Amino acid sequence: MFSQFDKKMMRRCFTLARKGRFKVRPNPMVGAVLVKNGRVIGEGYHRYFGGPHAEVEAFQNATEDPTGATLYCNLEPCCHANKKTPPCTPLVISKKVARVVVANIDPNPDVSGKGLQQMREAGIQVESGLLQEEGAELNRVFFLNMKENRPFITLKIARSLDGFISESRDKQTWLTSEKAIKFVHRLRAAHQAVLVGAGTVRADDPQLTVRMARGPQPLRVALSASLIFSDRAQIFTDRFRDKTLIITTQQADKEKIEQLLGKGVRVESAPDLTNGNINLRLLLEILWQKFKIGSLLVEGGQQIFTNFLNERLLDELILIETPVLLGQGLPAFDRLRGHFLQLKTIKKLGPDVAIIYRKKER
Amino acid sequence: MFSQFDKKMMRRCFTLARKGRFKVRPNPMVGAVLVKNGRVIGEGYHRYFGGPHAEVEAFQNATEDPTGATLYCNLEPCCHANKKTPPCTPLVISKKVARVVVANIDPNPDVSGKGLQQMREAGIQVESGLLQEEGAELNRVFFLNMKENRPFITLKIARSLDGFISESRDKQTWLTSEKAIKFVHRLRAAHQAVLVGAGTVRADDPQLTVRMARGPQPLRVALSASLIFSDRAQIFTDRFRDKTLIITTQQADKEKIEQLLGKGVRVESAPDLTNGNINLRLLLEILWQKFKIGSLLVEGGQQIFTNFLNERLLDELILIETPVLLGQGLPAFDRLRGHFLQLKTIKKLGPDVAIIYRKKER
Repeated sequence: MFSQFDKKMMRRCFTLARKGRFKVRPNPMVGAVLVKNGRVIGEGYHRYFGGPHAEVEAFQNATEDPTGATLYCNLEPCCHANKKTPPCTPLVISKKVARVVVANIDPNPDVSGKGLQQMREAGIQVESGLLQEEGAELNRVFFLNMKENRPFITLKIARSLDGFISESRDKQTWLTSEKAIKFVHRLRAAHQAVLVGAGTVRADDPQLTVRMARGPQPLRVALSASLIFSDRAQIFTDRFRDKTLIITTQQADKEKIEQLLGKGVRVESAPDLTNGNINLRLLLEILWQKFKIGSLLVEGGQQIFTNFLNERLLDELILIETPVLLGQGLPAFDRLRGHFLQLKTIKKLGPDVAIIYRKKER
Repeated sequence: MFSQFDKKMMRRCFTLARKGRFKVRPNPMVGAVLVKNGRVIGEGYHRYFGGPHAEVEAFQNATEDPTGATLYCNLEPCCHANKKTPPCTPLVISKKVARVVVANIDPNPDVSGKGLQQMREAGIQVESGLLQEEGAELNRVFFLNMKENRPFITLKIARSLDGFISESRDKQTWLTSEKAIKFVHRLRAAHQAVLVGAGTVRADDPQLTVRMARGPQPLRVALSASLIFSDRAQIFTDRFRDKTLIITTQQADKEKIEQLLGKGVRVESAPDLTNGNINLRLLLEILWQKFKIGSLLVEGGQQIFTNFLNERLLDELILIETPVLLGQGLPAFDRLRGHFLQLKTIKKLGPDVAIIYRKKER
C-alpha cells in the first residue's frame, strides 16, 4: 500500500514538524510535503501557535501548480472552523491534489476522520496510517491532551544506585553528572511547565531553568499550602520570576500571597488542598484549562512523586541512575506497589544511565 | 603507525580468538593471522587448554611460505618453557617473518615484553598496542587473573524498580523476563563457576544450569557452615551433581559431609569460616589454585552480595532491573556506602534492563 518513497516523504514531514516543537505547543507538530511527478514541489510546517497550518505553508511554498500532486502530512488536515485559522480540507480540495497520505487521524473529536472523509468525497485518493506509530510518538503530548484533557506528565527521578533521591529530607544531594544535568535541561525545554513541591524549593533552592540546553523557559510551578519560602529563593528573584506560579490553598495567608505577588510571581489558589494533600486532578485541570499547559515535568521531591505515582498520574517516568551508593536516605519510591510501568528506552548519560518508562496501557 | 588494514587483521584475530572462549579457560583467548603481499596466507587460534597456540596453528595452516610475511596476533607470543606447550617466539623467528603486530603484551611476568624483545633482537619489525583496549576487554578475565591471582568476579543482581531482590528473605520472587533469564544463562556459560549462599539454595532451590543458552555447565559453588540443605535440592540430585562444590568450615559435621559426598557432590573445607562469615579471599584462593576457576559469577543472596561488596571483591556488577514495584523486601544493597563503580554498558532485555558496571580503577 505504501512505497519506500511514501515512507521517505512521511519521515520528511516528521522532520519538518519537529522544527515547530517549541512554538506550536499545545498544538500538534505538523509537517507537509507536496510531491508531483516524483519531485518535491513544496514543503511547510506549523511554525507557531495560531499560525498557518503545515498544509497552507506547503501550498504557499509550492514552486509548481499542485494539480494532480500528492500531499503528505503527518496529521489529518483539519475541517473544523471553531479556531484561529480557517479549515484546511477546503483548501486541499481546491488545489486539486490527486492523493493525500497521512500518518495519524486527528484525535480532536471535531475532526477525527471527518477531514479525510471530506477529501474522499471530493474524489481525492486518501490513505492514512503510514508510519502511524512514529507519528503518534512524535505527537504523544497532543494525543494525550486530546484523550485525557490534562497535561502529559513526565516524572523525572534522579537516584543513587541503591535507590535514594537524597541523603536526607532537608538536604540536597548532587547526584548526577554534567551530561545528566544537560539532559534534564533538555527535558525542561521539552515541557511547558516544571513542577516541584515547596519542600524542594526550601531544601534545594532550584533555578528550574534551561541553562545548559537550547529552548524556551518553562513555567515553574511550586505547590505550597503554607507559603513558607525563603524571600531569596531563586524562583522569586531571578529574571524568570514572571515564569513562576505558586499554587496554594484558598485558606492561604492573604498577606503572604500579597508579598509573593509583589515579587512579580503568579499565585493561584486551588479549591481542594486539604491537609497539605493537593488534589492533583484539580491542579492539572487548572494548568491545562487556565494556563494551557500541555506537558508537565515533575521534578520532586519524594512526597510529590509519591502523590503522582499513587494516583497513577503519569505518562512517562525517567529514572536517572548514578553509580554511587549512599547507604541510606530518602527512597525514590515510598512503599509503593504495582506493575504499571513498561520500558520505553535506555540512554547512557556519561557515567549515568537514564531509563525511560511509560505507563502501561490498561 | 597502524593502517586500516592492520586494524582489520587484528579484528580478525579477535574473532578467531573468541572461538576458543569456552575451551581455553583459564588460558587467554588468542587468534593469529599471517599476511603476505596483502593476502591472508594462514590463520589459527588457541582451541583448547593445553592445545597448540594460535601462532603454531597459523603457521601449520599456511598455504604459502611465510618468509617475509606479517604475523598478527592479539597477544604477545610466549617465550617461556615452564608449561604444556613449547615457546612460540623461536618458531616465529625460525619462520623468517618480517613483521609481528600484537594488541597486548602478555601480563604473565615470565613473558611480559620478553617475547617481543627476542623477536626484535632476531631482526623482526615488532609493533604492539594495536587495538589494545579491545584486546584487553576480550581477555579481561585472563589479565585480571594474572594481576590479582584470583578469579574474575561478576556480581549479578536482579532487582525490582524499587531496589528489592525479593519480597522476603525466605521466599523466591521471580522478577525478570524470559529474555533476562536467557541473558543470565549466557552469563553462566561465560563463567567457569557460579556461586550462591546456602540460604539461596534453601529458599530458591536453583538449578544454576545453562538451559536457555549454549555453552558449558559451570562449577556450582554453594557456601554453607551448617550444611543444612534439603536432601532433594536440585544441585545435589540433577545430572550435573558432579559439578556441585560445597564449601564449608573445618568444624563442619563429618556425618553431613559424608552424606553429601555420598550424593556425588564435592565438598571442600575452608580454614577460616568463622561465625558463618566466610573468608572470601581464602575462598577465592581455593577456587583459583585448586579448581583453576578463572571467572566466578556470584548469584546471591543478599548476604553474599554484601560480603563481596564490602570487601570490594568484584570486577563487574550486572544489575538487572525489572519494572515492578514491590513496596518492600530485601534491598539489593544493604546500607553499603561508596563510589567504586563506573558504568560500562547498558542493554535492553525485553521489558527489563541490564546495567553493567565495572569496578573503578583506584
